[in-house]
Amino acid sequence: MTPFPSHAVIREVGLRDGLQSIQTILPIGLKCEWIRRAYEAGQREIEVGSFVPPRLLPQLADTADVVEFAKTLPGLVVSVLVPNLKGAQRALETGAHGMLVPLSASHAHSLANLRKTPDEVVAEIASMRAARDAAGSKTRIEVGISTAFGCTIQGEVPHRDVLRCLQAVLDAGADQVGLADTVGYAGPRAVRELFEKAKRIAGDRLACAHFHDTRGLALANVHAALDVGIERFDASLGGIGGCPHAPGASGNASTEDLAFMLGEMGIETGLNIEGLLALRADLARWLPKETLHGNLARAGLPKTFAVHSVHSSNDPTAEIR
Amino acid sequence: MTPFPSHAVIREVGLRDGLQSIQTILPIGLKCEWIRRAYEAGQREIEVGSFVPPRLLPQLADTADVVEFAKTLPGLVVSVLVPNLKGAQRALETGAHGMLVPLSASHAHSLANLRKTPDEVVAEIASMRAARDAAGSKTRIEVGISTAFGCTIQGEVPHRDVLRCLQAVLDAGADQVGLADTVGYAGPRAVRELFEKAKRIAGDRLACAHFHDTRGLALANVHAALDVGIERFDASLGGIGGCPHAPGASGNASTEDLAFMLGEMGIETGLNIEGLLALRADLARWLPKETLHGNLARAGLPKTFAVHSVHSSNDPTAEIR
Repeated sequence: MTPFPSHAVIREVGLRDGLQSIQTILPIGLKCEWIRRAYEAGQREIEVGSFVPPRLLPQLADTADVVEFAKTLPGLVVSVLVPNLKGAQRALETGAHGMLVPLSASHAHSLANLRKTPDEVVAEIASMRAARDAAGSKTRIEVGISTAFGCTIQGEVPHRDVLRCLQAVLDAGADQVGLADTVGYAGPRAVRELFEKAKRIAGDRLACAHFHDTRGLALANVHAALDVGIERFDASLGGIGGCPHAPGASGNASTEDLAFMLGEMGIETGLNIEGLLALRADLARWLPKETLHGNLARAGLPKTFAVHSVHSSNDPTAEIR
Repeated sequence: MTPFPSHAVIREVGLRDGLQSIQTILPIGLKCEWIRRAYEAGQREIEVGSFVPPRLLPQLADTADVVEFAKTLPGLVVSVLVPNLKGAQRALETGAHGMLVPLSASHAHSLANLRKTPDEVVAEIASMRAARDAAGSKTRIEVGISTAFGCTIQGEVPHRDVLRCLQAVLDAGADQVGLADTVGYAGPRAVRELFEKAKRIAGDRLACAHFHDTRGLALANVHAALDVGIERFDASLGGIGGCPHAPGASGNASTEDLAFMLGEMGIETGLNIEGLLALRADLARWLPKETLHGNLARAGLPKTFAVHSVHSSNDPTAEIR
């Protein structure tokens, strides 16, 4: 049986993937409070927004100011999504620590979402890398291969297409890559198989798994990814999020449920789950028209949770219980 | 990496664990239709009711008649829950193929639920076995160790208590045993650890995992149990079910979501998921006042699902995709 990793990172993507998917525009003051309290609850990687034209996503029009605030929190890795070179240039200007570039392995989804073919996106990533290096910037370039597990438009996305994109973006200068189940098609077998194949190509540069809970499998998929050594996961508080091209998508893996699962498994995340639950309760107040997801907030932590964590990590008698 | 099992069984428990937890009394005609259509969708193990006093559970007062009907379906394994010797005698009279005896590893839950200590239940199981053998019956006796992963009343349930109960019921003559996360406290680590320990004691007689989705971990827990070789799972259509002593419990693992996950993993279940989804839609009509759970019914099967199944099982090119 594979040993689980000793620690894992949950990157909060609710401020980007979550807020871009809903109608409500969260004022910048509340975005900053979200970031501050997520930070206080132990989160050290947050995707705070997106550099896309404000007419397309007015919800994220204040991203530069949000980055400015987030950078004041010591040790927080602040990342933004950038769809193109122009967005990357804005990310470099703001001094975000990371930029996340989506590239759809599905040709059809790539055209629908970015109006570019995957190869055109690869070429743009090479330009981003050149711009980053020319600026003498340390901003990390991470490419998320989206629709890696299938596509609602195109249907099947062959593994070879995903792996070809992965190799191409590494060749083009991406620092890290991840695989995203944009439309909630992934199951544990596909997760194991594709992440294993991707790891053979990308090694340690394969740095993230992004799952949606559309069909209830987000946490089982995380478990499968842990089985093959993945240690960094995107999630959003209250499970908000989705994809305009994934009808019925119920959002990202929820941060608090994932933190609970990892906690139970004795995998160190540095997160204070009570803090996350308190923040989620406020998020529900801030977004009264939106449906939040996840189960932990409804059921609460088990009476035994703290005890379990102790058992799992360092109780020498745990084995004989 | 552990290979997954090639096949798995989902035992439908919605007619017992589900219907006992809700106020609506489903008429026997609809219960029989549920059973018939679950059978047509490929289910071959169904827990159809419970032999408890009708004043306690009027929802299940017709269990003898339901058993009668279910036994007419060739190859269907018909089981009933029995809390005591009297219930076991009724099960033997009806000729049910299996009886499921719950035994709480939590002393406090055992007293609250059955008004007996775990050891008193063990003694009663020995009487059931004697009665079964005296009757020359082949009815299988399966003991479900409940609150095996913790208890809302008592809190922690030490593994040693669970394993002691397991050994005791095997000694008392149980044919099979299972572990149940009655209150939704289990996570993947506890599942792996406890099922591994239980397997060392019970071997092949450890035959079932019963998870609730209270904190969203039911399917991740199934994945963890598959990792250690468990191949039989309780689930209920639409995820109905709960426990009167588990406030906020959101029900059992949902049959259709679990069937989807196993299908994606290439684990043979014999189930027709479209048939299960059609039946679930009718169940929602039959129980208009009840909340059904599960994600697949809302999102639908992925476009690629059939393709995936083929790849997983016997497409020789799957590896090179």
